[in-house]
Amino acid sequence: MSKIRVGIVGYGNLGRGVEVGIKNTEDLELVGIFSRRDPKQLDTKSKAFHMDELESFKGKIDVLLLCGGSQKDLPVQAPELAKHFNTVDTYDNHNEIPTHFEKLDKAAKENNTVAVLSTGWDPGLFSLNRLFAEAILPKGDTYTFWGPGLSQGHSDAVRRVEGVKQAVQYTVPHEEMVEDVKAKKKVDYNKLSAHKRVVYVVLEEDADESKVKDTIVTMPDYFEGYETEVHFLDQDTFEKEHSGKPHGGTVLRQGQTTEGKTSVYQFGLDLDSNPEFTAAVAIAYGRAAGKLAQEKAYGAKTVFDIAPGYLSPKDPAELRKELL
Amino acid sequence: MSKIRVGIVGYGNLGRGVEVGIKNTEDLELVGIFSRRDPKQLDTKSKAFHMDELESFKGKIDVLLLCGGSQKDLPVQAPELAKHFNTVDTYDNHNEIPTHFEKLDKAAKENNTVAVLSTGWDPGLFSLNRLFAEAILPKGDTYTFWGPGLSQGHSDAVRRVEGVKQAVQYTVPHEEMVEDVKAKKKVDYNKLSAHKRVVYVVLEEDADESKVKDTIVTMPDYFEGYETEVHFLDQDTFEKEHSGKPHGGTVLRQGQTTEGKTSVYQFGLDLDSNPEFTAAVAIAYGRAAGKLAQEKAYGAKTVFDIAPGYLSPKDPAELRKELL
Repeated sequence: MSKIRVGIVGYGNLGRGVEVGIKNTEDLELVGIFSRRDPKQLDTKSKAFHMDELESFKGKIDVLLLCGGSQKDLPVQAPELAKHFNTVDTYDNHNEIPTHFEKLDKAAKENNTVAVLSTGWDPGLFSLNRLFAEAILPKGDTYTFWGPGLSQGHSDAVRRVEGVKQAVQYTVPHEEMVEDVKAKKKVDYNKLSAHKRVVYVVLEEDADESKVKDTIVTMPDYFEGYETEVHFLDQDTFEKEHSGKPHGGTVLRQGQTTEGKTSVYQFGLDLDSNPEFTAAVAIAYGRAAGKLAQEKAYGAKTVFDIAPGYLSPKDPAELRKELL
Repeated sequence: MSKIRVGIVGYGNLGRGVEVGIKNTEDLELVGIFSRRDPKQLDTKSKAFHMDELESFKGKIDVLLLCGGSQKDLPVQAPELAKHFNTVDTYDNHNEIPTHFEKLDKAAKENNTVAVLSTGWDPGLFSLNRLFAEAILPKGDTYTFWGPGLSQGHSDAVRRVEGVKQAVQYTVPHEEMVEDVKAKKKVDYNKLSAHKRVVYVVLEEDADESKVKDTIVTMPDYFEGYETEVHFLDQDTFEKEHSGKPHGGTVLRQGQTTEGKTSVYQFGLDLDSNPEFTAAVAIAYGRAAGKLAQEKAYGAKTVFDIAPGYLSPKDPAELRKELL
């Protein structure tokens, strides 16, 4: 079988993750990276092109993996590109997913393409596990714990505080609560009490440590209401210890099959590199998008709409023999 | 929407699990239990019928949940019933799954029915997670740990030993190895070294304790090669502490997204009642079978072939809004 030809749109952390991830597969090949920047300035050995050239690749690319941001890029770019290409995105603005779906579904159905949205791990694998757990255990409660992991949004917010030179923020679940859920105990879960926020800051030379700390812990929406730790350290230690992008988390459901008989359903991820793993999920759904397009199953699809077998390079008979 | 009408075939632990599990749903209703035994002798308040009456229910039942055994019942019964009904089974003889699939697929396609096979948790949810993990992380290793949990087959084997009055066998994973996999360490996994077997025995009055123990720990296929603990106790303690049917286990994959960057993918179950949870999975796939039959998607299907959304009573728009 000929390989599935992939294009990458956007070359940030996620785009780089897709570029390296495709090398782990045998049935996908990278045609090129497309960026709004001058392609000569991209730090890559892959073929790179300006976005303006993308339309000329129609028919030469089977699936575009869209690696732009959810806030500004994807809402506009994804429905536009779905008119010409099969696409996969990692759109993660949970509240706006229904709107994003409708726009993609229209574009994809009118133009006979497949548009897979909101892959990755949350939304994505976590969503899948929330669905499986709830469908199998209708009586029960689902809990999501994020982290330990680096939150890009919260790190950015801390970096905007006056006096902060460098900063990262880790979201850390309350381990005791996680263990209680696993141990079938009742817990009083809410997103705020279930997580704490741990911040590492390198200060500007003349900054006021206690003022910086106070500004962080009282920041509305981001830190207010959370248990927040702020640690100060020097530039060298910061670079040595906080340059990775780890993340992960756990989806748990306690369900009662009958009175007094509990099942605990657990799904967890522990990721050295959040962008590389998110990319790996998007790549597997890229394979699925390629197969679905061959079957003319056009339209927008979420992870709920795609049979798991489509994610694998193995054919159904191999899967039954080796993995069932 | 009208409810999906379900029939149960076979009334052992699994059949009873389906009977109670259907009560946890709002979109399924139980039409009747079908057994080879005299229906008056079944200890149930549900409507019960003799198997011979089943064919007269054609058109009155949307999906049959087959709750017979994998060794003798399902290989013969499932392909026969798939000629007349949509079916779901929990066939768990991994090596024979391809053969079972072919027989079901032929029966289902020739008679316009849907036959879902090998649901439950292993095969079933564990298989799904082996597939997801491998498709997303192509470079890596998958580990399955079973237990802690009661193994029916091993318990039966111990009960056949001379001098044994009552017995249960628990399969217990080596926690240290599980923790090492989670901690991204290299492990030397094989099924034997990864599990130990813990046996609780009530002896017949005049039995020889050391002889019984010796017979158990040296039993080929079942215990030989495993670390095995044998504990002896009295009938009362046995009944008090060992009458449940707990089980569970963990599927783990360590995958490298790039050199030195590891992702740990983890799926786990901790079940107070193995048969009730297995039944709960089969029920969710029963819902899927009902929907697939309405779409005329006839043939045999495994968990790999069914899009996750089919398992849920919620419609696709609700799922996108609430769970993605």
